Amino acid sequence: MLQYDPAEREFEGSVIACVQMEPQIGAKRDNVARSIRHIETAAKNGASLVVLPELSNTGYVFADRDEAFSLAEALPDGETAQVFAETAQRLGIHIVAGVAERAGTRLYNSALFTGPSGHIGIYRKLHLWNNEHLFFEPGNLGVPVFDTRLGRIAIAICYDGWFPETYRLAAVQGADIVCVPTNWVPMPAQPGDRPAMATTLTMAAAHSNGMVIACANRVGTERGQPFIGQSLIVGGDGWPVAGPASGDCEEVLYAAIDLKRTRSGRTLNAFNHVLRDRRADAYHPMLGTGLPSSCS
Amino acid sequence: MLQYDPAEREFEGSVIACVQMEPQIGAKRDNVARSIRHIETAAKNGASLVVLPELSNTGYVFADRDEAFSLAEALPDGETAQVFAETAQRLGIHIVAGVAERAGTRLYNSALFTGPSGHIGIYRKLHLWNNEHLFFEPGNLGVPVFDTRLGRIAIAICYDGWFPETYRLAAVQGADIVCVPTNWVPMPAQPGDRPAMATTLTMAAAHSNGMVIACANRVGTERGQPFIGQSLIVGGDGWPVAGPASGDCEEVLYAAIDLKRTRSGRTLNAFNHVLRDRRADAYHPMLGTGLPSSCS
Repeated sequence: MLQYDPAEREFEGSVIACVQMEPQIGAKRDNVARSIRHIETAAKNGASLVVLPELSNTGYVFADRDEAFSLAEALPDGETAQVFAETAQRLGIHIVAGVAERAGTRLYNSALFTGPSGHIGIYRKLHLWNNEHLFFEPGNLGVPVFDTRLGRIAIAICYDGWFPETYRLAAVQGADIVCVPTNWVPMPAQPGDRPAMATTLTMAAAHSNGMVIACANRVGTERGQPFIGQSLIVGGDGWPVAGPASGDCEEVLYAAIDLKRTRSGRTLNAFNHVLRDRRADAYHPMLGTGLPSSCS
Repeated sequence: MLQYDPAEREFEGSVIACVQMEPQIGAKRDNVARSIRHIETAAKNGASLVVLPELSNTGYVFADRDEAFSLAEALPDGETAQVFAETAQRLGIHIVAGVAERAGTRLYNSALFTGPSGHIGIYRKLHLWNNEHLFFEPGNLGVPVFDTRLGRIAIAICYDGWFPETYRLAAVQGADIVCVPTNWVPMPAQPGDRPAMATTLTMAAAHSNGMVIACANRVGTERGQPFIGQSLIVGGDGWPVAGPASGDCEEVLYAAIDLKRTRSGRTLNAFNHVLRDRRADAYHPMLGTGLPSSCS
């Protein structure tokens, strides 16, 4: 990971951008239109991978399941997904965007991944937060890792990042980058003068796994629920390369992706490698007992 | 967890103390004698659980395996273990101390746990760092969790903390407190103006598992290897309660243990609990394939 200044544009490799924005509940067409404008700006500034927040098209605080249901769309055929796919193809970039997914009668808090050649895959949030349990089903696709020309890319959504297993699942499948659409809210016991606990969790996960983690949070207050911004991009050594962003402004963060440095950085010395040092022989089976996750 | 000021002594519950000190390589008798003085001070100040650094009796930078072998002792019958056991019984407290263990011809980077009623158990470092591979065998006792009147206590040593699995193994077996004897060294890419990455890893692990984590690091430079101090005690909400300590002084950190608050803090709202929200059904078996860890 390298510092990347869009004004200088001297870096020739690939650049990741996190869009921190404020979706409005239910205003899907406006939210998507504003997302596209941010994506176009990011692409103009050299980004080849753009991450949007969780539920970026619908907003977050649904009044009830009916409202969530009426706003959710099929993936990858819904209108939001179509617009993002068209945008990615037109600009020749990759986009990860949090969207509400409808699959038959079921709803998922999902993210779509689309690229220069069209639809790549989807991720469904594994760990639901609070009232999401009233609307969504828990994700059932594991933590897929997608091979792209930018590297191997996985996705996690918000509270997923509270579970080190999420990042480990990505890492042991070879992920270089985890894109995190999020809607972080204030946590209890958070001292006002410190970065959010989400920053700490993201740094620890990046360091322990030698992966780049790019978190795009929303801002604003929706139906009484505040969101904390502070989007950030962390390098594989665990230190932020961009952000944390402000707590309340729409803005775009940029960082240059150095895949070679990220991968070689996992070797710490002649004996140690952050992933190969895992003692899977000693880890209790209760840490993971499920079926292999679905990979595309 | 509560702030605890030894000068006030108003708290009636149990108190944990982390001894940050500077062992001298090979000076085992002196190291143990100085440890006992620190432990006596901590006990006088109300501590009922005292944590010492990794390899607190022998020092860390062995010249070769012969030196390590000559300094290591059988557990729990070696002289260091006997002295700590006697001290714990005399003062009516619990002690966790990093020591070099000899088991037949094998060496382990271990920690002993002893209490008011004598020997409780041992832990052998699972994840060896750098040249430790030249002297020690990787731990073969899993992550045991010991039931005590202070709560359920597990042990991890230094680089073990780089592996979220270590803390998860403790947590899923019910641990309330993880004691971490450590010999943290400077990490590459560490910005000089930030707390050590070890602080971030410890805070993330405490928050994600709802556990108290008490890290006792050493200070000083040994045979050219500097150590970073910055011992700390983190509450189950992930925020430091004591420390980080200085980078270069011998000192003792104190925090009061509030078991009820630690355990109830794992419930985040009507839907979420940091451990029950784990999606073991979705976690890939490769996250843990070993035999059940050995618990006492």
